[in-house]
Order: sequence, then structure tokens, then C-alpha cells
Amino acid sequence: MPAVGMVGGGQLARMTAAAAVGLGATFRVLAESPTESAALVTRNVALGSRLSLSDISSFATECDVITFDHEHVPGDILADLESAGVLVRPGSAALRYTQDKLAMRDRLSTLGVPCPRYAQVASVADVVEFARGSWPVVLKSVSGGYDGRGVWVCESAAEAEEVVGHGVALLAEEFVPFRRELAALVARSPSGQGAAYPVVQTVQLDGICREVIAPAPGLDPDTAVEAEALALRIAAELGVTGLLAVELFEARNGRLLVNELAMRPHNSGHWTIEGARTSQFEQHLRAVLDLPLGSCAPAASSGQFTVMANLLGGTDPDVFDRYLHVMAADPAVKVHFYGKEVRLGRKIGHVTIVGGPGDDVEELRDRARRAASYLRWGTEDGD
Amino acid sequence: MPAVGMVGGGQLARMTAAAAVGLGATFRVLAESPTESAALVTRNVALGSRLSLSDISSFATECDVITFDHEHVPGDILADLESAGVLVRPGSAALRYTQDKLAMRDRLSTLGVPCPRYAQVASVADVVEFARGSWPVVLKSVSGGYDGRGVWVCESAAEAEEVVGHGVALLAEEFVPFRRELAALVARSPSGQGAAYPVVQTVQLDGICREVIAPAPGLDPDTAVEAEALALRIAAELGVTGLLAVELFEARNGRLLVNELAMRPHNSGHWTIEGARTSQFEQHLRAVLDLPLGSCAPAASSGQFTVMANLLGGTDPDVFDRYLHVMAADPAVKVHFYGKEVRLGRKIGHVTIVGGPGDDVEELRDRARRAASYLRWGTEDGD
Repeated sequence: MPAVGMVGGGQLARMTAAAAVGLGATFRVLAESPTESAALVTRNVALGSRLSLSDISSFATECDVITFDHEHVPGDILADLESAGVLVRPGSAALRYTQDKLAMRDRLSTLGVPCPRYAQVASVADVVEFARGSWPVVLKSVSGGYDGRGVWVCESAAEAEEVVGHGVALLAEEFVPFRRELAALVARSPSGQGAAYPVVQTVQLDGICREVIAPAPGLDPDTAVEAEALALRIAAELGVTGLLAVELFEARNGRLLVNELAMRPHNSGHWTIEGARTSQFEQHLRAVLDLPLGSCAPAASSGQFTVMANLLGGTDPDVFDRYLHVMAADPAVKVHFYGKEVRLGRKIGHVTIVGGPGDDVEELRDRARRAASYLRWGTEDGD
Repeated sequence: MPAVGMVGGGQLARMTAAAAVGLGATFRVLAESPTESAALVTRNVALGSRLSLSDISSFATECDVITFDHEHVPGDILADLESAGVLVRPGSAALRYTQDKLAMRDRLSTLGVPCPRYAQVASVADVVEFARGSWPVVLKSVSGGYDGRGVWVCESAAEAEEVVGHGVALLAEEFVPFRRELAALVARSPSGQGAAYPVVQTVQLDGICREVIAPAPGLDPDTAVEAEALALRIAAELGVTGLLAVELFEARNGRLLVNELAMRPHNSGHWTIEGARTSQFEQHLRAVLDLPLGSCAPAASSGQFTVMANLLGGTDPDVFDRYLHVMAADPAVKVHFYGKEVRLGRKIGHVTIVGGPGDDVEELRDRARRAASYLRWGTEDGD
């Protein structure tokens, strides 16, 4: 069996490690520290920096293909690895569009993919001109940005001035008054096979994903097909190998607009571990190994839902006593812990509930939220 | 989070390791070699012998509780560990009934649990007397015996003579003309909580489990309840902590008879990874940690089935090319590989298919068998 190496030792690598066990592929992780989430559970851990060509090159000698649990390996390192013959999946040409939001917007616009109106901005005057008197305006750093950091919603020129003062390259985007946020998750293999998961609804709070409902309740079937086709098309046009998550706004007028792209397992796909025939983690491994892709069909029957709620750290570092309560209160809740130290607001795990006959989606959401709240705060009605 | 140590590094430990990732419990394995199935994928591997008190004691110092992926740790070692204050789950008093089939039969009979007629035998004359002219007679070694090894179906006194010649302590049992074989899998925690999975049908060939259908098709609901209640009662009476698998004969007259007991994750429960809300591996961890038990409800909707087929080694050691074919041919088949070298007839993995709406159980069985056959022989109509 071939060996896959994942650069990055976070929870995405941890869950990929678990998926690799059944698949039978050898799985290696390049982590920054032996106590990182994935390093705690993986047999083959190398320590090194994502910023070091020599660390990654040395890691790659033991792998048939390397992939990533984040988008933070610099493009020149990726290119050097490829020049040296390392199989990098997704490749640098695709990953560029997750590392440079301006390049992403320009490329998607060229492809005719609907995006929010955008412009590069270098000064407050640029932002004011972009706003055309209509606030808020969304400012994003062109490079970096993850889970909401690097994104600022500015209500006024004064607020924009503070962001511009950070001195990072910025992109301005119109603030889309959306009905809700959706995500389309697809996989594409080097052979060109594509597979699309059902489109989900994501619920964000303070820029952090808190909840995912699969499939998105009440989504117009044509819109669902449009979103899946859009994600598959982007994956093909950008030459993505592995997973591609396309975060979407469903605007108030029903239009879909692309918000962000990620080319790795994605928070919006954690529900697939229990909720789909093939988990996104196994699917990513299959795709980067150029194996035939697995079925994306939901595990729940037609008309039923799977709900995932993220578990954020609270103020009490010892989550274990509360864990007992949650297990006893709802034996069908599946808790995933990432082995991370509890810090306020940090993603330390998630919970999933797969709906059964007669389960109502709002009731499932309530159960998931109560479990996550209790694990965080010791009370079922926190957030 | 507490740490669970599993003595034994086979596929059961491997799949338990994967379950421990989400649960967040630290998982350690005591393996005999670094290339054993579980040792290949587990972060915390100690090397040592299941026959060495000092190896297991030293391993146990790093664990809050120890458990097993087999029943081959000698009883005196288990007792010594317990005397030294090690939490051993299941404990030696319970494990004894998996190590000594005569003790098991005597105890179950005392409890009024229906078993095949049995007697200890020491000579061919004893076997002939036991047979009362009715052959075949089943001979079993009192200690040991695993996956059919240590069990002999004798058609005549001459065949019995050969078995007696092995010189091991033997038990004779009536040959039960069964309709089919069933298995009842339950968990019991030290606090006394019990949980029962749906009763499954198992299909054996040459003494090796080949196929499991969950739940057992067409099983009379009263019989299903009887089997679950029987297994829960045995677990409680024997003081089992962790999983208990009760292998049953459904006799031609509809009666249930206990065939074998196992106190660990069991081949008849592999379907639960995809097919139940809580996998048997997570359930075993929960039970030995005295955590509240998870839901045993099937993932498939009511009236639908999950089918598991064991994957045995064929004659070609390179299974990977055939793996590609199986993945492409049936994207909903989930293959689990154990990382074991291919040897003829050796269990090297299993495949699972969870039925969806409209799936017929015979069609699911056929798909599972075809996948397993192709992986083994490179043809879909092998065995």
C-alpha cells in the first residue's frame, strides 16, 4: 500500500489518520510538535516546520504523495518540491488560489463564477470609493486568513482605517445580505474523477463555524445541483486534486455567490464521518492516492438530516466530567475530541447526530447544541 | 482523559485504536512485534509478551485500565495483576469462562442457560459413550481454541481417536443441527449499565466466520429479545466488563443454544463501525472506562440491513491492484484492511455495506461477497 504524508498536525490530520486505518494506506504526519492533535494518535510522526523546504523534502522521501491539513506552506516551497519530483496534491498551481484571495477572485471571475463585487484596496480612500456610500464593507487580507481571522466587517471609513493600518495587502468585498451560508464539498482525483457531497448549510458565529446541517434544509433541488456542479467545475478548472470545499452565500435573492475556497478536509464536512457512506477524510486520501472515489451518499435516509456542532473551549480545562454527562444524557450523540488543550473559543472537538426515522431537524440541532454547550460551559443553554 | 491499554496487537486492537481517536481517550497497545496490525497505526506501542507478568505489569503502569484483544493471557497472570491493584477489565473471574470451556459450560448450565449437551472426555471410549450411537460429535479443546482451531467435528470413533491422540483436555458436545448461527453482542460497564446490539446472523465456512448480516433477517422478534436478554444476563452473572459476544445456534426447532462466549470486540460486531450509532470498538472503550454506554441502534433505517464479509488472504500477496477494481466497481462498499501480510485463508480485512432504501438483503450479501471474492482471488465468483 502506498504512503500518504500530511503536512500539518491539527485535527484535520488527526481525523485523516483515523480514516487511513481502515483504508490500509500508510499515513505519515509532519507536525510542529509531538503534542499536536494528530501527532498524539499517529504512528508515523515527523517533526518539522511547514516553512522549511528541507523539513518537508525530508518528510516527502518517506511518502508516495504529500498533502496538507492547511494552506500555509509557502508557494515557492511547493514549487521547489514539485520541481524535485515530489507528488504534491493538491499542487501548487491549485493551492495558490487558497493562499491569494485576489488571485482566487480574479480567476473565478474569469471563469464566470458568481462572486461578491471586489477590488484590491491600498488606502482608506480606496475603501471609501469601493463602498460607494454603502456600508458595511468586508475587508480581507489577501494572504492568510483562516476561520475568520483576517476578515473584518467595517461599518464605516473609520473602521476601515484601523484595518488598513495593519499594513497587510487587502481586498474589499461587498457585504452580501445573505439568507444563509452553504458549503459544497467535492473531491477530484488526478485521473479527473469527481464526487460531490450533498450541499450543507453552515452557521457561523463571530466568524467561526458553529453548526452544519446536512443536507441544507429546504434547499431548492435546482440550487443544490447548481452548487454541486459549480464546485465540481471549479475543482476541474483549478486542477484541484483532493477535496475542494466551496463556501457559498445564498443571497436574499436566491443567487449563489462564492465566499471562500479550501482544498483539504473542511469543517463543513465533519458530518460525513458518521453521516455519509465515505467520510471526507477517506475521500481526500482516495483522491490524493488517485484511487476510485467513494460514495458521497448520506447515511441517513432520504428526508433525514445529520447535524454537526463544533465544540469550543470554555473556561474549565477539565472537560472529562462534563463528557460523562453528555454521554449519559444522549447516547446517540457522537463526540469527537481533538486532544487539544482547552482554551477559550478554541475548536477542541465536535459532536454529530445522525437523524433517524421521525427525528425533526430542529430537534436534532437542539440536541447537538445542548451537547456542545454542556461540554463547553457545564450548562445546556450556553452557546 | 484516562488511558486504556489493550494487551494484544491484532486487528481488534487496530480498530479499537481508530475508535479511541474520536473518543479522546489515550490508547496504548502491548504488541508482540512492531509490525503487528495495531502497532502499525497506534501512537503508543509497548512491545512485550502476553505471557509475561513483568511485561504486562510494566505496560499497565502507563494505563488507567487494561483490556484485551484476545483471551490468551493466563489466568494466574491476570490474578497477579489484580492483586497488584491493576484495573483489569474484563476481570480474571469473568475471563476464566472464555479460557476454560468446561467451566463455561458448567457455569452456564448452573444458570439455566440453554447449551448443547456436553461432557468432559478423556478417551475414545468416553466419546463413544457420549455419542450414544449418534454421530457426528463435536470435540473441543477445553482451553484455547480460536476461530475454529481447537474444534473438531468427528463423524466416527476413528476420527475421535485422532483428536484424542492430540493429548489435550477435551470436551464433547452434541452436534446441533442448526437452522443458522446467530450472535448477540452486548456491553456491560462496571457500574452495571448494559447495552445490546441487534442480534445478527453469522455465516461460517470451515469454522471461520465469513459473513454477518445485521440484524438477522426474518428473526422472530421474541427470539431476538430472548437472545439479547440472555446475553445481558450472562454478562451480569459472569461480571463481564466490556463487550460480551454470545455465539448462538438457532436450532431447527427454533430453540437458542449458546455455542461460544468472547469478552472483547468480536468479528460478529465489525458491522457496527458503519452500521450502528456506536461502534463495538468505541463501546468496549466506554465500558472498560466505566463511561455511559452509547446507542446500539442501527444506522440503517428500519427494515434495512448491514452486511459484513470477511476478507481472507488468497494466493497473490499484492492486494492493492484488486482493491482499485473493488473501489471502482462499488463505491458504497467500505473496505477495511488490517495491515497484515497476505497468507492463504488468513483474515486480512473485511468489507461492509450499509443498506439504503430499496436495497434487498440478498443483493447486499451478493455485493459484499463479490467484493471480498475479488479482493481475494481477482474474480467475483470465488469464495
